[in-house]
Amino acid sequence: MKNAIERAQILLEAFPYIKSFHGKVVVIKYGGSAMRSQEAQNAFIEDVVLLKYTGMKPIVVHGGGPEINHMMKKLRIEPVFKNGLRVTDEKTLEVVEMVLAGKINKNIVAAVNQKGGKAVGLSGKDDNLILAERETVHGDIGYVGRIVKINPELLFSLLNAGYIPIVAPVAFGLNGETFNVNADTAAAEIAVALNAEKLILLTDVDGVMKDGKLISVLTMSEVKGLLNDGTVTGGMIPKLQCAVKAIENGVHGVHIINGSLPHVLLLEIFSDEGVGTMITGR
Amino acid sequence: MKNAIERAQILLEAFPYIKSFHGKVVVIKYGGSAMRSQEAQNAFIEDVVLLKYTGMKPIVVHGGGPEINHMMKKLRIEPVFKNGLRVTDEKTLEVVEMVLAGKINKNIVAAVNQKGGKAVGLSGKDDNLILAERETVHGDIGYVGRIVKINPELLFSLLNAGYIPIVAPVAFGLNGETFNVNADTAAAEIAVALNAEKLILLTDVDGVMKDGKLISVLTMSEVKGLLNDGTVTGGMIPKLQCAVKAIENGVHGVHIINGSLPHVLLLEIFSDEGVGTMITGR
Amino acid sequence: MKNAIERAQILLEAFPYIKSFHGKVVVIKYGGSAMRSQEAQNAFIEDVVLLKYTGMKPIVVHGGGPEINHMMKKLRIEPVFKNGLRVTDEKTLEVVEMVLAGKINKNIVAAVNQKGGKAVGLSGKDDNLILAERETVHGDIGYVGRIVKINPELLFSLLNAGYIPIVAPVAFGLNGETFNVNADTAAAEIAVALNAEKLILLTDVDGVMKDGKLISVLTMSEVKGLLNDGTVTGGMIPKLQCAVKAIENGVHGVHIINGSLPHVLLLEIFSDEGVGTMITGR
Amino acid sequence: MKNAIERAQILLEAFPYIKSFHGKVVVIKYGGSAMRSQEAQNAFIEDVVLLKYTGMKPIVVHGGGPEINHMMKKLRIEPVFKNGLRVTDEKTLEVVEMVLAGKINKNIVAAVNQKGGKAVGLSGKDDNLILAERETVHGDIGYVGRIVKINPELLFSLLNAGYIPIVAPVAFGLNGETFNVNADTAAAEIAVALNAEKLILLTDVDGVMKDGKLISVLTMSEVKGLLNDGTVTGGMIPKLQCAVKAIENGVHGVHIINGSLPHVLLLEIFSDEGVGTMITGR
Amino acid sequence: MKNAIERAQILLEAFPYIKSFHGKVVVIKYGGSAMRSQEAQNAFIEDVVLLKYTGMKPIVVHGGGPEINHMMKKLRIEPVFKNGLRVTDEKTLEVVEMVLAGKINKNIVAAVNQKGGKAVGLSGKDDNLILAERETVHGDIGYVGRIVKINPELLFSLLNAGYIPIVAPVAFGLNGETFNVNADTAAAEIAVALNAEKLILLTDVDGVMKDGKLISVLTMSEVKGLLNDGTVTGGMIPKLQCAVKAIENGVHGVHIINGSLPHVLLLEIFSDEGVGTMITGR
Amino acid sequence: MKNAIERAQILLEAFPYIKSFHGKVVVIKYGGSAMRSQEAQNAFIEDVVLLKYTGMKPIVVHGGGPEINHMMKKLRIEPVFKNGLRVTDEKTLEVVEMVLAGKINKNIVAAVNQKGGKAVGLSGKDDNLILAERETVHGDIGYVGRIVKINPELLFSLLNAGYIPIVAPVAFGLNGETFNVNADTAAAEIAVALNAEKLILLTDVDGVMKDGKLISVLTMSEVKGLLNDGTVTGGMIPKLQCAVKAIENGVHGVHIINGSLPHVLLLEIFSDEGVGTMITGR
Repeated sequence: MKNAIERAQILLEAFPYIKSFHGKVVVIKYGGSAMRSQEAQNAFIEDVVLLKYTGMKPIVVHGGGPEINHMMKKLRIEPVFKNGLRVTDEKTLEVVEMVLAGKINKNIVAAVNQKGGKAVGLSGKDDNLILAERETVHGDIGYVGRIVKINPELLFSLLNAGYIPIVAPVAFGLNGETFNVNADTAAAEIAVALNAEKLILLTDVDGVMKDGKLISVLTMSEVKGLLNDGTVTGGMIPKLQCAVKAIENGVHGVHIINGSLPHVLLLEIFSDEGVGTMITGR
Repeated sequence: MKNAIERAQILLEAFPYIKSFHGKVVVIKYGGSAMRSQEAQNAFIEDVVLLKYTGMKPIVVHGGGPEINHMMKKLRIEPVFKNGLRVTDEKTLEVVEMVLAGKINKNIVAAVNQKGGKAVGLSGKDDNLILAERETVHGDIGYVGRIVKINPELLFSLLNAGYIPIVAPVAFGLNGETFNVNADTAAAEIAVALNAEKLILLTDVDGVMKDGKLISVLTMSEVKGLLNDGTVTGGMIPKLQCAVKAIENGVHGVHIINGSLPHVLLLEIFSDEGVGTMITGR
Repeated sequence: MKNAIERAQILLEAFPYIKSFHGKVVVIKYGGSAMRSQEAQNAFIEDVVLLKYTGMKPIVVHGGGPEINHMMKKLRIEPVFKNGLRVTDEKTLEVVEMVLAGKINKNIVAAVNQKGGKAVGLSGKDDNLILAERETVHGDIGYVGRIVKINPELLFSLLNAGYIPIVAPVAFGLNGETFNVNADTAAAEIAVALNAEKLILLTDVDGVMKDGKLISVLTMSEVKGLLNDGTVTGGMIPKLQCAVKAIENGVHGVHIINGSLPHVLLLEIFSDEGVGTMITGR
Repeated sequence: MKNAIERAQILLEAFPYIKSFHGKVVVIKYGGSAMRSQEAQNAFIEDVVLLKYTGMKPIVVHGGGPEINHMMKKLRIEPVFKNGLRVTDEKTLEVVEMVLAGKINKNIVAAVNQKGGKAVGLSGKDDNLILAERETVHGDIGYVGRIVKINPELLFSLLNAGYIPIVAPVAFGLNGETFNVNADTAAAEIAVALNAEKLILLTDVDGVMKDGKLISVLTMSEVKGLLNDGTVTGGMIPKLQCAVKAIENGVHGVHIINGSLPHVLLLEIFSDEGVGTMITGR
Repeated sequence: MKNAIERAQILLEAFPYIKSFHGKVVVIKYGGSAMRSQEAQNAFIEDVVLLKYTGMKPIVVHGGGPEINHMMKKLRIEPVFKNGLRVTDEKTLEVVEMVLAGKINKNIVAAVNQKGGKAVGLSGKDDNLILAERETVHGDIGYVGRIVKINPELLFSLLNAGYIPIVAPVAFGLNGETFNVNADTAAAEIAVALNAEKLILLTDVDGVMKDGKLISVLTMSEVKGLLNDGTVTGGMIPKLQCAVKAIENGVHGVHIINGSLPHVLLLEIFSDEGVGTMITGR
Repeated sequence: MKNAIERAQILLEAFPYIKSFHGKVVVIKYGGSAMRSQEAQNAFIEDVVLLKYTGMKPIVVHGGGPEINHMMKKLRIEPVFKNGLRVTDEKTLEVVEMVLAGKINKNIVAAVNQKGGKAVGLSGKDDNLILAERETVHGDIGYVGRIVKINPELLFSLLNAGYIPIVAPVAFGLNGETFNVNADTAAAEIAVALNAEKLILLTDVDGVMKDGKLISVLTMSEVKGLLNDGTVTGGMIPKLQCAVKAIENGVHGVHIINGSLPHVLLLEIFSDEGVGTMITGR
């Protein structure tokens, strides 16, 4: 009985969060270690369906890393990098799209449906959801796209009908091309276009670190300071840039959390202190 | 962190219940000890609002016991009983209605609103919600009513608009009278009229007992057995009769639980074993 | 037959009023002598239901005077007055709320339903309909509230579903208190919040008098003149202040009429000359 | 003041009728003497708009008698009769349709709009509202139609949008012809197709007479008796046949009243005794 | 088979037009030679129904010329002209309204219904669709109206319910009069009031001519030039004035085409070059 | 001009078909030669979008043949056949799903969007659209599924919102497996579940042949005769079995047509004689 009472207590602690996020859109970038083990994937899917049933409107944007490399290897396509970015030629692009939209996306859809959600898998081509043009900042790196427009109508229509959209980061080009786009960026742009409450980026680190310690909460000016003074480096830089863009365009909070921790989504959303870094508007 | 993970685990254990009761009507008879202490009342209200936010459609039917006696005493009206039932003359009826519909009902409404719900208080007179005629089984005991019809339209309309109805067990008579009706019975009749998933009766005991032990689950035939062989006695008899009527008319489950236990509503609904007695259709 | 033709004629005279108030909200403060005799009450209820069936959307806000005093006397609570205002301590407040929301309100609801309307009784606590704070203009007079906000959503929802709302002038405090509020003021504030066509105040006098004669129509500037030059005195002053506030915030007309006259509501609304005083915007 | 109170009383006497016909469809055949004088026409139009504003859904089906004859005379077309029925050749048909649909119909529409209703004029050709075939019972009498089908969709759509449909008794033939149809019959068929509460036939006599006295109420079996025993003769026979057909197919009441009496519609609908003959289902 | 492929090709050529006019309102003035032969009328009706089925929302405003004269002659009413305009006295007005609203309008309605459309015939009196006042520019020419207001509500309601409105150019006067209004002007005003995509005027010439050659496309400034420099004369002047007014008030394109050419409507709408003159906003 | 008139004529010939299929669901199995050349694919996509704009609700179910083989070859997976059916082991299944749902499906979606449609790509996993179990009729051939249920809700929701669904024939297994299902069968089952007007199967032959000649129309009994007497052989047998099943379950017509003929869809739907074989209910 004591156990039961403790359990009730924990449900009640989640309650203020359930209340304040009721009916709100939450966009989650799912990738990295959270995708690698079956156990982590199961935990993630459970969390997404629970968010849905406790009243939120989750949208999942997924990456694909290891499975793309794996398939490229099987097809004996040699990966080429330039400034740390994958050069995406036509053969590579074909693999990227097939794996993202045909394999990973549908696996997530099936997993969500098995846990009791009603998922619909989309790529950026469906109803021209994600429109992009060629990314040329880093020279010619092939079919890598820079997002120019999100058409949110299909997402609104599916959310209102009670579905959980699962989005593969493949974009449609203004001239009919297919583009591979960054999943963090796609998630941020979708969060902005849907006026989301939260953008949640699952990574392989615990959050933003300073002097070896995790920072729990960051304001916009603190984020800009960290970007300017060189405290953050590597892959965290574009993530924070996504966060800044999202917050500046109306998203209320951005969370950077460690996807390798089981149920990290619940832990971050349903508690005061959280487990990663939250970036807020002020 | 370990603590956080345990908390996530407990949320996940509640998940199957959240899923399966999503969008379902749950009628709760609130009375007895759960009403007596401020702490118990707070816990009960929190639970009701949490049920609402996790997707259910709760309706509360409340009793009034001690406050009615208290006010009668202040007014120096002598209580009269016949076969253990309160004889309700006109002066008594006036106090009963005022206390139920004007004091207790509005207190519960205000408490639910303070916790973030949107409550609307009703008596059986509103839109003729509860129609009754004079109860004559026990001879003339005055303005005590036997429910003859529930008009569920107003409840459906409020539930669909997102409100939590709080119902005082006062009925309108076919000839324009006011009747005091039993709150357990009113809750059961409302549960039937709304095709509720669950009817939950808060009492002052832990549930149905046999040989000093709590029975966790009872089928309809077992309930009838207990009623026939004299195992259950006293106030539990009418509660089980309510349960039988509710189940026979389409309610999926009836729970008899101890209202003095804080958060007993959550404990009973969101766990496998529960803490009281559940009566099911088979 | 001649009789029949005359009757048709009278229906036709009501017709322009029926046409021009079609679908409009009419807020009626019901109190005083109109409440005292059973006959006056019956006539009033018939009028309200007739307004509803001829296409208007009536809302009734009621007072409670004599019944509150009666109950206080029975409970041997001594009334205390300060500057002519009732000092409302906790014990008094309890009686006020019980009588207003639990007795008078439900009696009106039942009477309307019996005449064929569909009434729903509300207090200002339901869905936080009337929010108030402590009135301190006259020093400490206890739980007397000054209205700070009307939440009209519940009223709109009930009106659109075809119900007649009956409102008790009890407010919810910003800090969780209960407040007794003036019924005329509550009616005026509700009329403003719902952008009502008319606010009708039933009183115990024929209307605004000057030199012993009833004034039929008053413009805003005339009302202000009467208030300034001391022509009106006593209880008529706050009524005219309500009227000014209502008109200045968009209500099209305010009527002050004598509730002791049977069917005064019909007489005032459905005829050119009317029987009381009408205050208009110009 | 005494006058005012009497007026309120009369409004109240109409109230039970207003209540019980609320939202109900009432089909009125308008013709004969009620159309002849400007005064009678004004009174009729006022009554129709008043029915609408007090909550009914009136539909007017009009005849055309004298104006058709008048126009035929101007065009020097000689009327031909066979068994008392007008033989309708092509030239006659052209006049009939023009006068009914182009003149009388539009005059009624404009008159209703001027009194504050929202009228839309229709002929049986609009959306194929009235489909007919050649009437051959009396031999070849030209373009006189027997109604085979009412398509009620357009009427429902206009009624639900708040319009008052005014229907000219011109039908569309299954082979593309135009047919003149009897207005009483058209009104009865429309009443059946819309499941109307009432069918009201305006005539030039006071109702059904027996032994020189008006019969106020007739049951179906009494009507059949009168038809069989020869009590009723002439033009009343087809009117009673219409009534029988309407009642047998679900219309609740059929009224035969004298259109030359001003405001006869109000007198009949809003009083107990009425002024003509009412035929009911039992 | 070759034939079949060519046919598919032609359907495909119409496709861009079908796409870009999908859901758009198209107002067509129907009159002159397009009305005279049965063959031309059949072709016109087919075109209107085809526009509807390929996704447009057509509204037809018709004239009446020859039939009015024909009927006046039969009634031996002498036509009187002043400055080339028909002086419309009461007798003439009666004929005009009867023929337009009672004969031509209903013939078009029936023809559209026979081809599979769902037509509803209206005059400007229905729901006060066209309000006018006396036209006095040319001195007293009787009941000739200048349009002062279009009430589009009824047209929107019918279009949204899938109907094709057929409008006779008869207007209701502000003082209750009936007015004959110019059909081109009525069509243009309706096009403006409904924010139509296109206004199409069927005439008896091929379009706007210059130096003996048809001009395919005209901008607003070119139209004004032609009006100023005297290139256009006679009946084309008011048509171009209608066009200017329509374009200046938001209609996207006005087409002036030769109604004597069978299926000229399809030819003009579903091809690049068109067959008449199109006036555009730039 | 003559050319223009001929073009109008051809539009008009398509008109009866446009009319009778308005608002109807048409399910099209797209595969084989119609997919192979870019020109054939363009023509097919144009046809689908044209069907949509002329009022139908097309759903495309696609196959994948050559691209699957091509990708398997690149991955050096050896195709294995048993009784002419591809044995689908896990490695093969992965390729099948990726190519169907990730490559071909998204290519069709993008092509439809470029032509002005609003396409959404789905696999049978989305919202559990196609549920299947292991096909065991031909022994163990791996992950080949037999459809057990279509969940049409997502398709209805997308059709009603104006989208064109593009469906990859991948099914979700009752135990969480992925299954490859036959595209003809999937199209037929979807046509039945949506109560489609038509099922259209694109093949590589002109239709059903007898004695070297194409049969234009077949009744159900004729189809059964052809199946029994051995007239049809090879791949046409399962196609006719699909047709029989579809017709027996409410689909109105099934068309078997040659996808290598450009615009065969338009030719078949918009003309009397058609170009392939149509199977009808009688």
